Amino acid sequence: MSDPREQPAWNPPRPANAETPTDPAAGLTRRELLAAGAGAAALSCAAPPESAPVQRANDGPPAPVAVDPIPTVRIGFVGVGGMGSVHVRNLLAVGRASPGVEIRAVCDIQAEHAERARGWIREAGGPEPALYTRGEHDFQRMCAEEDLDLVFTATPWRFHVPVCLAAMENGKHAATEVPAATTVEECWALVETAERTGRHCVMMENCNYGRWEMMVFHMVRRGIFGKVLHAEGGYLHDLRGVKFSDRGEGLWRRAHSLQRNANLYPTHGLGPVANCMDIGRGDRFDYLVSMSGPSRGLQEYAREHFPEGAPERAERFALGDVNLSLIRTALGRTITVVHDTNLPRPYSRIHLVQGTRGLFHGYPNRVYVEGLSESHRWDDAEAWREEFEHPLWRNVAGPGEELGHGRMDYLEDYRLVRCLQDGLPTEMNVYDAAALSAVTGLSEQSVADRSRPKEFPDFTRGSWETFPPLPLVSG
Amino acid sequence: MSDPREQPAWNPPRPANAETPTDPAAGLTRRELLAAGAGAAALSCAAPPESAPVQRANDGPPAPVAVDPIPTVRIGFVGVGGMGSVHVRNLLAVGRASPGVEIRAVCDIQAEHAERARGWIREAGGPEPALYTRGEHDFQRMCAEEDLDLVFTATPWRFHVPVCLAAMENGKHAATEVPAATTVEECWALVETAERTGRHCVMMENCNYGRWEMMVFHMVRRGIFGKVLHAEGGYLHDLRGVKFSDRGEGLWRRAHSLQRNANLYPTHGLGPVANCMDIGRGDRFDYLVSMSGPSRGLQEYAREHFPEGAPERAERFALGDVNLSLIRTALGRTITVVHDTNLPRPYSRIHLVQGTRGLFHGYPNRVYVEGLSESHRWDDAEAWREEFEHPLWRNVAGPGEELGHGRMDYLEDYRLVRCLQDGLPTEMNVYDAAALSAVTGLSEQSVADRSRPKEFPDFTRGSWETFPPLPLVSG
Repeated sequence: MSDPREQPAWNPPRPANAETPTDPAAGLTRRELLAAGAGAAALSCAAPPESAPVQRANDGPPAPVAVDPIPTVRIGFVGVGGMGSVHVRNLLAVGRASPGVEIRAVCDIQAEHAERARGWIREAGGPEPALYTRGEHDFQRMCAEEDLDLVFTATPWRFHVPVCLAAMENGKHAATEVPAATTVEECWALVETAERTGRHCVMMENCNYGRWEMMVFHMVRRGIFGKVLHAEGGYLHDLRGVKFSDRGEGLWRRAHSLQRNANLYPTHGLGPVANCMDIGRGDRFDYLVSMSGPSRGLQEYAREHFPEGAPERAERFALGDVNLSLIRTALGRTITVVHDTNLPRPYSRIHLVQGTRGLFHGYPNRVYVEGLSESHRWDDAEAWREEFEHPLWRNVAGPGEELGHGRMDYLEDYRLVRCLQDGLPTEMNVYDAAALSAVTGLSEQSVADRSRPKEFPDFTRGSWETFPPLPLVSG
Repeated sequence: MSDPREQPAWNPPRPANAETPTDPAAGLTRRELLAAGAGAAALSCAAPPESAPVQRANDGPPAPVAVDPIPTVRIGFVGVGGMGSVHVRNLLAVGRASPGVEIRAVCDIQAEHAERARGWIREAGGPEPALYTRGEHDFQRMCAEEDLDLVFTATPWRFHVPVCLAAMENGKHAATEVPAATTVEECWALVETAERTGRHCVMMENCNYGRWEMMVFHMVRRGIFGKVLHAEGGYLHDLRGVKFSDRGEGLWRRAHSLQRNANLYPTHGLGPVANCMDIGRGDRFDYLVSMSGPSRGLQEYAREHFPEGAPERAERFALGDVNLSLIRTALGRTITVVHDTNLPRPYSRIHLVQGTRGLFHGYPNRVYVEGLSESHRWDDAEAWREEFEHPLWRNVAGPGEELGHGRMDYLEDYRLVRCLQDGLPTEMNVYDAAALSAVTGLSEQSVADRSRPKEFPDFTRGSWETFPPLPLVSG
């Protein structure tokens, strides 16, 4: 089970006298399934899919990009507000633990934020960073002028793609906070630029490094749940206060809710379960359907929190308070993704991974494995941690809970630096960034089209079949 | 809030200068929404929906059916195996608590089951019941010969509709175990026959009377969750042992999994949340999309539990182990329905009801209400029970936990008898039976059609707008 792609066909072969299955994919291996799909398309008289995927004609890459080892990773940072300042301090901590990280430049539209970051860098004993604070597009000057290995961005969403493109066009690797992109065309721009320039383009999905998420990945790799058939993830977080704040994300995040009815923030829930299903490395997202409910939460919040006549009370939001998407993979597996950020509720990312032998379900964290758990009863997931704690969580110390979202943000930054130092493919590549981020644009299309299915582009152009599975790293 | 239809429009009106919303339904009242829908269809050049609903041309009924009070309800029972024997004993207990129930006839293909039921009826001191044991269709003779008010069936699924039709054609009211029907055409047959004969046709969805389900309904009626926007329900129950049993449901239930890829059993999860959303009484199911994953669980179970060469090991199942459906209502609200019966896992019906002020989430049962719960933290739902226990659970004694699924099965049978004795509309009517059961056929169509949306027929033909909301009964 260490290589999930040594699994047999997803459905056992049907005997010759069996009835025709309802699902035409049943009984086929992955290669048969793909061949059948191509054949069916050629033979069929059916109309083309409603949402013809934007598909590039060239073949996919032979392997994920890897570059020569970079003994000292020189970083330029764009956006050092909330999450940016977490990453800066984590990267400085990575450098303290093992030299080879330098933050050489800092860019922010707020000079005091850049100055604050420079203070942390000085404290850490690093070289004096150059500051770029001449407005929204000063990252371009930084990318052009500075001698950097990596440009890392934690700006408002609309700058993620422009910063990554500027970095790669100037020969730098790129790392971006989530979501990497907010439209399918932007996803293609990242993929095409990364391939043309031979640079890494990494979406920093910190939840992939969460303690429970990594434990579940470890359990999947050890075959505890059998064959993984279904997963669920989401971002269920009461962001009303954040969206209406007069600082930080409040300055820009609400605008997305005003304009778009979609899953605006799919990657925290989807990233970890996509890894458990080898998305981009043995399977891929095939299509999704999406549905949104009414938009009430933000309007009600504004009415209750702003005085009569305040402009906030006149705002009308496109975003349905609850958005639900269902993804089917090329191997016929299923994933539910939920977005729910406008209503009062406790936080959840759902986090469900279900296989033929058992499942993990988060919030609260519980495990059931046939033959090992008491019949029909959940185990507290804590009972499984001693055996299945991910080696990375076991072996790598870090600054602990005080920075960002516990140690997961540190481990995420640590692993990015290590992959660059060691000349390895990054654990999150540009195809992951594109596939996960594409959910926003595709869900928007589906919601606006009575939940009709929308095809995922295959950003790898077939290479998902041969890309190696993610390794179970240990340090 | 006692009449949920006094709520304002689901979305507040948009100011004149607001951008066009992505969702064309945003900002409309229910009547505007319906008018807009009709107008859009008339003006549009778009192709007809993929699944043209079977829609009858005549108008809907002015009110749910109610008949003269029946002081003593004379019952003929069809199918007294597992659930049937639970209902027989519950109905006898209802009669013991308050006279006015007689089980006058019992029909079963297994004479010993009929004899066993006769023994319970004798013990209860009732009149001697006639037995009908001459094979699968002997219920027809019972319906024709016996002088009964109600025919109650708890047979294998494929007999539910034939028994209900025979009952109503012979002037009897009908009650059936779930699901009432397994295809959309069968749903129409129930509706048309009930309307033509003026008889009740009740689907006995016991979960509508569950303690938590009724508490949540009570909380919804009291406005605790604000406006209900979203709900989730499901049937997640490891039935592998039941499906492969050589007795009881094992004799017929597996066949449905062999032949159909759908949500085979939607009503336990959907019934209670549909009541919270006034489905059929102020809102209705508009369309669904559905997706199934691979079919592995039953095949693996057979391989592990039957010897080589056993016919069970050659069976190949159409049913995806996990089926996911999303329903959108006419008012634009959303419901997730899950079916998951072939994999090892603890039981769940999910049971989530979410509104603008808070939500209930089952398995484990928890509540969050803005301003009343600690910020961002769940309350154990037990803390809400003292105030919001449903009056029926508070006031009506019953045989307790020893029969069926605790007191909910008793209360379900009790309320059916009381409505008939009092000449009231039944709390579950034929339109509920049809709308809830239609999920099976529609999900099958959607799964086979790459998850494309399938329209629900409006079994009420418009009467869902004027049917009164379900009352909060107290005894």
